[in-house]
Parts: sequence; C-alpha cells; structure tokens
Amino acid sequence: MRISELAEVTGTTVTTLKFYLRRGLLPPGRVVTRTQAEYDAEHVERVRLVRALSEVGGLDLAAVGRVLEAIESPDIGRLDVMATAQHALSGPREREGRGEGEGPGDGEGPGDGEDPPRGDERTRAWIAARDWQVDPRDAALDRLAASWSACDDAGIGLDEVRLDAYADAVERIARIDVTSVPPEPAAAVRQVVLGTVLVEPVLASLRLLAQQHTAITEGRRS
Amino acid sequence: MRISELAEVTGTTVTTLKFYLRRGLLPPGRVVTRTQAEYDAEHVERVRLVRALSEVGGLDLAAVGRVLEAIESPDIGRLDVMATAQHALSGPREREGRGEGEGPGDGEGPGDGEDPPRGDERTRAWIAARDWQVDPRDAALDRLAASWSACDDAGIGLDEVRLDAYADAVERIARIDVTSVPPEPAAAVRQVVLGTVLVEPVLASLRLLAQQHTAITEGRRS
Repeated sequence: MRISELAEVTGTTVTTLKFYLRRGLLPPGRVVTRTQAEYDAEHVERVRLVRALSEVGGLDLAAVGRVLEAIESPDIGRLDVMATAQHALSGPREREGRGEGEGPGDGEGPGDGEDPPRGDERTRAWIAARDWQVDPRDAALDRLAASWSACDDAGIGLDEVRLDAYADAVERIARIDVTSVPPEPAAAVRQVVLGTVLVEPVLASLRLLAQQHTAITEGRRS
Repeated sequence: MRISELAEVTGTTVTTLKFYLRRGLLPPGRVVTRTQAEYDAEHVERVRLVRALSEVGGLDLAAVGRVLEAIESPDIGRLDVMATAQHALSGPREREGRGEGEGPGDGEGPGDGEDPPRGDERTRAWIAARDWQVDPRDAALDRLAASWSACDDAGIGLDEVRLDAYADAVERIARIDVTSVPPEPAAAVRQVVLGTVLVEPVLASLRLLAQQHTAITEGRRS
C-alpha cells in the first residue's frame, strides 16, 4: 500500500508517518518509483506499536526508539531486557526541563552500567531489609528514592511500613508479570518490554477504579 | 526573601519561577517596591510541590494546575477528589498530539460529568463481573479500555483472567491508599490527590525492582 493508505489504515496522518520515518521509528517502504514506496502489514503493526507506546505508554519518541531497539535484539538477556524496559519507563523524567531552560531533555542515551550504586541511603537500606535481589546500579533505585522523597516533601506519610505494604502487593503483580513471559526468547523479549510499558497504564487505571470502589464500599464513613 | 533567593532555596531558576507566576502555579509575592516582591516559606513549599508533580509525577503544567486547584478546594467531596486526581493522572494522554499536527494538546478543561458511559463493552462487562462500584462516566474506564486494547494490539496476552489477577493485587494497593487518608477533610484532600499522583511513580519503580527480584529468584530457569 502507499503511504496515504498506511495513514488511513492506522488512523494517523502522512505527516506523522514521514516524521516516524525520519526518526527511524518506522522502517522505509519498498521503493517503487523515485517518489513512491510500498508499505505492508508489518508497517501497519509497527505504526500501531509506536502509537501505543507513545500515547498509551506515555513514552517520548526517544524512549519509543529504545524500546523498539530492545525488541529487535534477539540475543538480549532477560535482565538486559528488564533494564531496557526500565530505562524506557523512566523516560518521562527527561521531560522535566521543558519550559525551564535547563538544557536538552531529549535524546540522552541509556546508562552504561558503570555508574556508582543508585538510590539514596534510606532506599538502599529498605531494599536490603526486604532482601530484594536487584542490581545496585539499577536506575529504578534512583527513581524510587526520588519519588519517595517527593512524597515526603509533599507531606504524604509514606513510611517504611506503608512502603512494605505496597511492596507486598506489587510483588504479586511482578509475579504475574514474570510468569506471563513465554519461554521462547524472542517472544519473551517482546512480552517483557512491551508488557512493562503497556501494562503500566492498565495498572494505574485499575488503581483509580479500585480506590473508588474501596472508598465507596468501605469508606462510607466519609 | 527575594525571588533570586527563592530560586536558590528551591534549586530552580528565576526564569522558571517567573514562568510559574505567569501560569498561576505560584501565588504572587507580597509587593515591596514597584520592581520587588517578598516570598516566604509557603512559596518554597509550593515551588517544591509544583516540581514534584511535574518531575516526579510526570504531569504537564495544565494538570499540575488542576491538582493545585483541587487541593485548594476545602469543600470538595471525597469522590470529587478522586475524580480530580484521576483527571490529573490522565493528563499525559493530552500530550499525544505532540509533533503530529492533531491540534492543541494542552489546556483542555476537565470533563463535566455529563458524558455517556465510559470504556468499551469488554471493560464494562469486566467491571460488572468483578462487581466494582465505580462511576460509569469515570474517565479511568476509558483509560483502562484504551490501555487494555493497546496490550491486545501489541500481542500481550492480557486476558480477563490475568486482568483479574492484577486487580486482586491492585485492590490491596487501593486499600492501603484509602486507609491512609486522614479523617480531617482538608488533609484528606491533599493526601488523596497528591498520594494518587506521587505514589504512582513509587509503585512503578517497585514493580520494576520486584520484577527483577522475581526473575532472579524464581526465574533462574531462563
């Protein structure tokens, strides 16, 4: 199909598709004439995936690029896959400079794994007390430390006890995540990376609905 | 203190603070001379909150404005509070038009609650089967439907059984959320709104770490 049909089928615009092509998020079509290329079902699937990751997953286009790269590395190990998914998920923090003149917020490369231990002391102590086996240089530790501090600063009473209670529930989620991973390597990579990014908004919506349900059924005292 | 001191204390820049003032995210200081205003501890706290919501919570500035508005409405009901927090959380989807020429993605007002039932048929059926008491016009239903469909499109096997398993875990999280809400109304509003937004990245980081821990300890077969 032509690019205009690809746009129609995927509910997007030719401008957007050309933008994806320029950013390397969409592989080029098969050249037919000097001004025309043919696109196929794989392009349709790819456009849908890019849109899902950016619109549903909330990733910026640099993060989308990293996720696509991870999916296309068939020899990547399971932990590397998780690290990549993680890095992709921490992408939104790159947007923090927007409108604040604090330098470019886009296009930063992933960490190289040669950094010092991540997270602050409290976070590392909590992880150790919980006996979680995680890479001490994992960027998620920084993210946990920063978001935990932000809760403190905002006066939310998130102490170790409440964090442990959350972690108990989240361990169940992680067990579902990990046991849903298919045994075949390429499928596993796809499942872990996309599942980590795309299931996140599912869980966030479930939390809002479950809060409402709980507040209504248990919290009638309010 | 002067605006330059406020910038220093909060680790930001005068440019950023003036931007917040223009957007109404930071209340004006007490006018001292025609070119100078005084800021106090409340301004420091507010700047930290704005930064936490945007940088840690990942909200765009329009959503930050809505959250601040919610916190400042002392007579808002518990469900309204949740709806506002929800709306603020669904903010990132407003960014979807970026670079795609699909019209303005910023500054849209919240829904007026006069809309038809939200979510698709499958989502409504699942909610009904689960017997969750939620507002059928809640925007989180749309978000759940969209993110669930995106998982389908990406080939993630998220069926009703797996969604139920996630929901069981998320119900525990919601119970912690709801029982952590202080009885005093103004504090409750603050806790629910900020907790919904700021605890989200804590949970997302915990999920990544718990996945890693689970994959290492249970998944040595990989």
